[in-house]
Amino acid sequence: MSTARSLAVLAFSGGMDSSTLAGHYHQHGHELILVSFDYGQRHTRELDSARTIAKHYAAEHHVVDLRTVGALMPGSALTDAGVEVPDGHYEDTTMRVTVVPNRNAIMGNIAAGIASARAAEVVALGMHAGDHVIYSDCRPVFLDALRASVESALEGLHCPRIEAPFLHLRKVDIALRAAELGVPLHLSWSCYRGGELHCGRCGTCTERREAFELAGLSDPTRYETQVAA
Amino acid sequence: MSTARSLAVLAFSGGMDSSTLAGHYHQHGHELILVSFDYGQRHTRELDSARTIAKHYAAEHHVVDLRTVGALMPGSALTDAGVEVPDGHYEDTTMRVTVVPNRNAIMGNIAAGIASARAAEVVALGMHAGDHVIYSDCRPVFLDALRASVESALEGLHCPRIEAPFLHLRKVDIALRAAELGVPLHLSWSCYRGGELHCGRCGTCTERREAFELAGLSDPTRYETQVAA
Repeated sequence: MSTARSLAVLAFSGGMDSSTLAGHYHQHGHELILVSFDYGQRHTRELDSARTIAKHYAAEHHVVDLRTVGALMPGSALTDAGVEVPDGHYEDTTMRVTVVPNRNAIMGNIAAGIASARAAEVVALGMHAGDHVIYSDCRPVFLDALRASVESALEGLHCPRIEAPFLHLRKVDIALRAAELGVPLHLSWSCYRGGELHCGRCGTCTERREAFELAGLSDPTRYETQVAA
Repeated sequence: MSTARSLAVLAFSGGMDSSTLAGHYHQHGHELILVSFDYGQRHTRELDSARTIAKHYAAEHHVVDLRTVGALMPGSALTDAGVEVPDGHYEDTTMRVTVVPNRNAIMGNIAAGIASARAAEVVALGMHAGDHVIYSDCRPVFLDALRASVESALEGLHCPRIEAPFLHLRKVDIALRAAELGVPLHLSWSCYRGGELHCGRCGTCTERREAFELAGLSDPTRYETQVAA
């Protein structure tokens, strides 16, 4: 490794996966540019978590305002107040209403543009195996297509490498990796409902709980369902 | 064609190419959703033109706010006040400072996401042969890569067709096509400098002037250089 630390631009929601991604690149000695996206998600609460975790890693952090984009994509439970966030598992067909079409392509391409302008070595995305069933833009085949598009668009300019080191990990593996890296997951936010506490019932809460359970780790998250019990 | 008019989402700058694109899809009987992008370009003047031309076509028009994205991409003469807009031809190497890295990928993917959510049949981009030399993300090979990425990201969702009907036209052909379609090009804006009048000297002004000249059409544009002469 050269003496100047190489830059990595991360799409960074402040959730469990991208926080662990930050820990991963931090450990590998990269200087981090963490980019969060405000697309009008009802869980903007995650942006506060993103800020806190960015501070933990003394990382450069930016919030990209995509609210005017989110407003033009009706029909997703994440951005449309008229559509309810469903309870259940990621694999459930009901979970399809949480899709924001082309979201990872939009975020990945913005991150790639920033990385090109800043001469960063890497763009990193936090998608993992558990996302593949429901989110088409989290699959390995999409990642390949995104890479090809970025390489074509940036021909003749600085072109970063696009990485997704968790692509074939399950959520439980991410929980284990986070523990290994000492990632402050108690500061991270997953819940799609974006209340005071994690609801414990929506798709991403269910996935988060199960990951800690399967990993045999104590879950640092306070869930509404626990408080109610 | 069915009785319900099919929707076309256009990346729409309010310049000569995308205004002619609007005329093209309007003539083909599509209902237009025109999407303009504010990425902090110094020629935001083009957004006023976009609004006026959208009104001319009685089209739905939206301005997507990407100013926080533009602010994270230093080094382009279009967005960075510290970099001067060069005079000359598109082919000149000096013109490279007008590149905003990955811009068409970002805009095209946002348009595709909106088109998916709105069940639009088409996403249309206005790139043409004259752009290919300098802007990598205006080349046919990029368009193919963008299509592959969008099709992968939207698998299982509504997926629009991505079209760029001017891809192999020269700017002079676009001027002729605009005349044929009666596109109100006197309302369109090209100049990268974004002053009161078109400067007449920057890359895009040079290209615009030459297109009308080569087409043998009278140029409806008022250039600073004329006024000074």
